[in-house]
Amino acid sequence: MVMTSATNDQQVTTVQELLFDKRTEANDISLKAMLNADPVLIDVVPALDALPGMTRRTILTSGAPLPWSAYEGGQRRAILGAALFEGLADSFEEADARLTDGDILVRPCHDFGCVGSVTGVTSASMPVLVVEDKVSGSRGHCVLYEGGARERLTYGVWNEAVHRQLVWIKDVLGPILSAALRYGGGVRVSPIIRRALGMGDDLHSRNTAATAVLFQQLYGPILDAEGSSGAAREVLDFLSRNDLFFLHVAMATGKSIADAAVGTPHSSIVTAMALNEREFAIRTAGTGKRWFRAPIPPLRAKYFDGITAEDTAFMGGESLITETVGLGGLSAAAAFSLQDYSGGSAESMVETTLAMYGITHTEHPQWRIPSLAFRGAPFGIDAARVASTSVTPRIHMGAALRGGGHAGAGLLIAPVEPFLEALEALDAQAATAP
Amino acid sequence: MVMTSATNDQQVTTVQELLFDKRTEANDISLKAMLNADPVLIDVVPALDALPGMTRRTILTSGAPLPWSAYEGGQRRAILGAALFEGLADSFEEADARLTDGDILVRPCHDFGCVGSVTGVTSASMPVLVVEDKVSGSRGHCVLYEGGARERLTYGVWNEAVHRQLVWIKDVLGPILSAALRYGGGVRVSPIIRRALGMGDDLHSRNTAATAVLFQQLYGPILDAEGSSGAAREVLDFLSRNDLFFLHVAMATGKSIADAAVGTPHSSIVTAMALNEREFAIRTAGTGKRWFRAPIPPLRAKYFDGITAEDTAFMGGESLITETVGLGGLSAAAAFSLQDYSGGSAESMVETTLAMYGITHTEHPQWRIPSLAFRGAPFGIDAARVASTSVTPRIHMGAALRGGGHAGAGLLIAPVEPFLEALEALDAQAATAP
Repeated sequence: MVMTSATNDQQVTTVQELLFDKRTEANDISLKAMLNADPVLIDVVPALDALPGMTRRTILTSGAPLPWSAYEGGQRRAILGAALFEGLADSFEEADARLTDGDILVRPCHDFGCVGSVTGVTSASMPVLVVEDKVSGSRGHCVLYEGGARERLTYGVWNEAVHRQLVWIKDVLGPILSAALRYGGGVRVSPIIRRALGMGDDLHSRNTAATAVLFQQLYGPILDAEGSSGAAREVLDFLSRNDLFFLHVAMATGKSIADAAVGTPHSSIVTAMALNEREFAIRTAGTGKRWFRAPIPPLRAKYFDGITAEDTAFMGGESLITETVGLGGLSAAAAFSLQDYSGGSAESMVETTLAMYGITHTEHPQWRIPSLAFRGAPFGIDAARVASTSVTPRIHMGAALRGGGHAGAGLLIAPVEPFLEALEALDAQAATAP
Repeated sequence: MVMTSATNDQQVTTVQELLFDKRTEANDISLKAMLNADPVLIDVVPALDALPGMTRRTILTSGAPLPWSAYEGGQRRAILGAALFEGLADSFEEADARLTDGDILVRPCHDFGCVGSVTGVTSASMPVLVVEDKVSGSRGHCVLYEGGARERLTYGVWNEAVHRQLVWIKDVLGPILSAALRYGGGVRVSPIIRRALGMGDDLHSRNTAATAVLFQQLYGPILDAEGSSGAAREVLDFLSRNDLFFLHVAMATGKSIADAAVGTPHSSIVTAMALNEREFAIRTAGTGKRWFRAPIPPLRAKYFDGITAEDTAFMGGESLITETVGLGGLSAAAAFSLQDYSGGSAESMVETTLAMYGITHTEHPQWRIPSLAFRGAPFGIDAARVASTSVTPRIHMGAALRGGGHAGAGLLIAPVEPFLEALEALDAQAATAP
């Protein structure tokens, strides 16, 4: 009896050790692919042309997919708005009918090599940033930052002003950036991120420095490609006055890096974290396109003047791709200026980043945090470590008004359940795999 | 006997109290003038036109004045170079003879509303930044940043490349910046400094963020005033590629702020700190143009690869005006990225700034330090507090090669003697004044 028990224990241990070895090896492979990445912003192209599988009748949105009928708030409004923007319907009612019929398709951004901010709505004619990892060839995409107005499609608003701005982005901003990037040969993104982490950005809630550094690199190609025409000046002014412009570049970059690790069997490295209106969900390198979901916990937020938590609602979000690659909340200790914006103190931001080393696999060799003696950013969230420690990723996030609009920002502490479920799936996979 | 002694003590105390009250009142007045300042970069103008008292035969240089024969190193070479640049002589020998005769005059920058970096050499045709405090009307000036080459007049080098660059600055950079500033109505400097302190700059050894933010504000007026001509592009490229460009703006700004306090009788607030080749010297608001001098202590520096302390030499410097207004070493805790550049750790940089609160009069209401929970920068160095604590200003400084050229950067701990002597002078003044 005692012997049998011991033998069983030994067998169990051996199987666990085998699983552990297999996972460790797989994680090393996926991490290596992510760390080797050399992401370059190469172009800005309409989503229809850039995204494999995209059609004129497809509308992409943030998070794990829901049936159309389940979208009720800002995410629903933004999808309906995009249908009108694309000329797929003349009214919300008509768009709703076509969406209900499946004549217009709603799909998750992540399945199209794309990520979206908040509602994340991306349709065929919208220009997307194209970031290519020159090592793996994987590409990440994201629509252009929509501008600083509180009311945007990004935040679940569709109206005439939003429409006008999207037309300007499609007809002016996108084509001129494309011309400049083609003229200038693209922009390497990793050195800009490295620099910005030394200048107070977390690259999620704060992109002030990265945007300024990008501007120093882009004004030349813009002038070379377009001269100082009125349209070129509009673009220069837009780039220089929107401190969050770089966020969408960082997001497309994060997607290109994370996708370099996708499809590594047994790897427990997280390759996506995303929100739809209702759920926080993750993917891991070893479990492919499967989403592991849980309800979204409350955001610990600082709202703009006069706004309270009751005025706000979740409406999706995939800017969490920045945390997925070690930025945002994981690099909180780089961005003390966010104390005023998303709450907390310098001390708590240091604690946040230190805690993240416990659930990540390594430290980024180039992206370094000055307040931690230039320690590399915590990189490669490991679902197995999240499961064993119950410490979950800390996420810097924007908050949205229930009725649409930007409401403030805060800290989201990811729920643990999706990580536990992902690990179960990986364990099951490993137990049955050769 | 006992009574007499007590009476004497009481009298002494009373006199000291009166002095103290007088000084406190005076310091409040000088600090108020400095804190109220609203410095605006209004123009770039040849020194001859900008600086009251400037002549074609005057060459300004850093620090308390020395007789011409006392300048022996880089500062001497730079002054001789400026004489050639202005066409005042055809050779170093001829220039030396005219300088010895007093036919060419060497004067301290500070007496002309001007400050200079390292050698600080400023001559008639060199364009200077003009920063005006819109409240007091006081103006500060500084030549334009010379560019990133190791060999510059700033660092005691005169050769053909240095000459060419100074001609380009005089003929292209200066006039185009002037046109842009006049076209755009000037640039308010204090908000840029506020922003840059939140982005890792100390505004002395590091001006990366401030330069990027200034560029976002200047490219528009440059294009408006000049179009995208070849010359305008040269200027845009220069501004976007020289991360220290803003240093000289910060210096002219510091001078305009400090001069708002100059000439406040009894005030022990420091209004200038400057180096010549041999001496560290200060002025206070209550002692006017009088310099209080001491030999320069060794710099605790990190040098560029292959350079050692023996290769370096002091050759002047007035960028210490940034410390005089609470920036540079006083705001070390804002600039953790300087760990790699000027030595030290994040912890030691926090300690440096905390120590500076002990010798300053107040905290700047707008210039705030994120790592210290947005505490205001230590502002208004008080010679009386330096004297009573023996804690002296910590200064971030560039290092120069003995033979000329930029060698690295480090921390200079000011000697205490000039502060003690200034205080003695203030005490003597107060005892005799009405």
